[in-house]
Amino acid sequence: MSTPAHRAALIDGKTIAAKMREEVAAEARALSDLGWSPRLVSISVGDAAASDIYVRNQKKNAESAGVEFEARTYPETTSLEQLIGILQGLNHDPRVNGIIIQRPLPAHIPVKVLQKAVHPLKDVEGMHPASIGNIVYNDLALGPCTAVAAVEILKTLPLSLEGLTVTVIGHSEIVGKPIAFLLMGLGATVTVCHHMTRSVAMHSRASDAVFVAVGRAGLVTGDMIKPGAAVIDIGINRVDGKTVGDVDFDSVADVAGWLTPVPGGVGPVTVATLMKNATLATRMQMEHYRDAYDKTDF
Amino acid sequence: MSTPAHRAALIDGKTIAAKMREEVAAEARALSDLGWSPRLVSISVGDAAASDIYVRNQKKNAESAGVEFEARTYPETTSLEQLIGILQGLNHDPRVNGIIIQRPLPAHIPVKVLQKAVHPLKDVEGMHPASIGNIVYNDLALGPCTAVAAVEILKTLPLSLEGLTVTVIGHSEIVGKPIAFLLMGLGATVTVCHHMTRSVAMHSRASDAVFVAVGRAGLVTGDMIKPGAAVIDIGINRVDGKTVGDVDFDSVADVAGWLTPVPGGVGPVTVATLMKNATLATRMQMEHYRDAYDKTDF
Repeated sequence: MSTPAHRAALIDGKTIAAKMREEVAAEARALSDLGWSPRLVSISVGDAAASDIYVRNQKKNAESAGVEFEARTYPETTSLEQLIGILQGLNHDPRVNGIIIQRPLPAHIPVKVLQKAVHPLKDVEGMHPASIGNIVYNDLALGPCTAVAAVEILKTLPLSLEGLTVTVIGHSEIVGKPIAFLLMGLGATVTVCHHMTRSVAMHSRASDAVFVAVGRAGLVTGDMIKPGAAVIDIGINRVDGKTVGDVDFDSVADVAGWLTPVPGGVGPVTVATLMKNATLATRMQMEHYRDAYDKTDF
Repeated sequence: MSTPAHRAALIDGKTIAAKMREEVAAEARALSDLGWSPRLVSISVGDAAASDIYVRNQKKNAESAGVEFEARTYPETTSLEQLIGILQGLNHDPRVNGIIIQRPLPAHIPVKVLQKAVHPLKDVEGMHPASIGNIVYNDLALGPCTAVAAVEILKTLPLSLEGLTVTVIGHSEIVGKPIAFLLMGLGATVTVCHHMTRSVAMHSRASDAVFVAVGRAGLVTGDMIKPGAAVIDIGINRVDGKTVGDVDFDSVADVAGWLTPVPGGVGPVTVATLMKNATLATRMQMEHYRDAYDKTDF
């Protein structure tokens, strides 16, 4: 007996990311012509090997999107006070338009404190509480890259987001919750499920789209999905030396209408979103400086 | 035929508020003993009559909670720049611990711009994007008073919030959405519905608790409620000269397990929450100044 072909169309994150990078490159050129060439600074602390693969990937993406990228590595022994001083210097440097704080950080460095020390206008990762709050307010703002990327992927599908019933599985501050507000802002009816939810399947089976960002391989199975629904898999897990998402691929692909693969789905779009945030941040800074200049004028 | 008694227990907001004010008064005394007597400044602009009833109610509540309250009214013609200057002065004044911006404001004053000009540590209304973002991050923070009050009411009921299925009807930035994150932070499974939702009843009928904050009288009827559920009515509408909520009282009271009346439900708890925020803000400012002092010490 031959296996029937999967029903779901695979969503190609690489193609979506490539299109975004082209748009970013055009905006980066426009900004450069105005004297505001976008420039990112990446901060790693301690063991550079742990984040090296991410940093190199970001640098490569930045270059192809016309965004300058400087990777800095500070020694393991750097104190929190020193790092905050470094960030304050970057916050005040007009030639720096975005700051990325690479994880993991040494144990003595609380990541939230560092993220709050990045000026909200340079917060290209969208991690500052003010950035998150602006998303809640539906203001154009720098959103958390993974959440923004996941929603951008849904927007490429031929579905109207107004009134769409969506379940988000996972309620982390930087992925699940921001996805929920972004979708609410676009008119979707959103349920957020998590490890305390009594029946995730009750919600996900009734949904037109399901986002999953938990970090557990095989968490979402085909019987939890409504036939034809869109499934956006944000999980990244290592199983038997392979990278897989939170979705049990075969059973979900038989039921879903659309499905993001892992790797090659949300991941590439997340890095492209970081570059888009770099140009957004640069334009916001340009306008901020112009506003300040205009105000001294009257 | 006699009408059967309503099934729902009415939740008495006035009693909950009185208990909160007692706790606030104790904290205000403790802060005063440390030299930090909580003090609020209320800003009205233009026609004072429009907000007068709210200001007087806040002042009365402040006095009974041991919080000083100064009501200021500026003329209709005050410019945005002047108001921002006034707020900056209050932000820097250590004798002012909280700032309230009364609505309505004159048409030339954008309320969001003023709210952002209030320092997050003095944002007792919990309206600043950073305050909203901190709620998303589950940080102890100054939350939007109405949302915090509605959740506090649910917490008085004999229900475990972990895994509780909740529907929030209405997705405003300062009520519906913050209720949703506050509940997510407490372990509830939350669905947010709004005017674009295809079937609100499908979600609300499956929920252990329903919050409604839309501003339309009679929006929620008994057939939309699961028998025994808690219904928190945040709406305030004027119908035939009477103040009513968003809930069709009689039909919902026949089905629900608990129900907040309007008036006398969420309203009094909201004002008590404002006073609680005043003491929270005062303590945060005290600690902030001490941290700054400690840092200059080494």
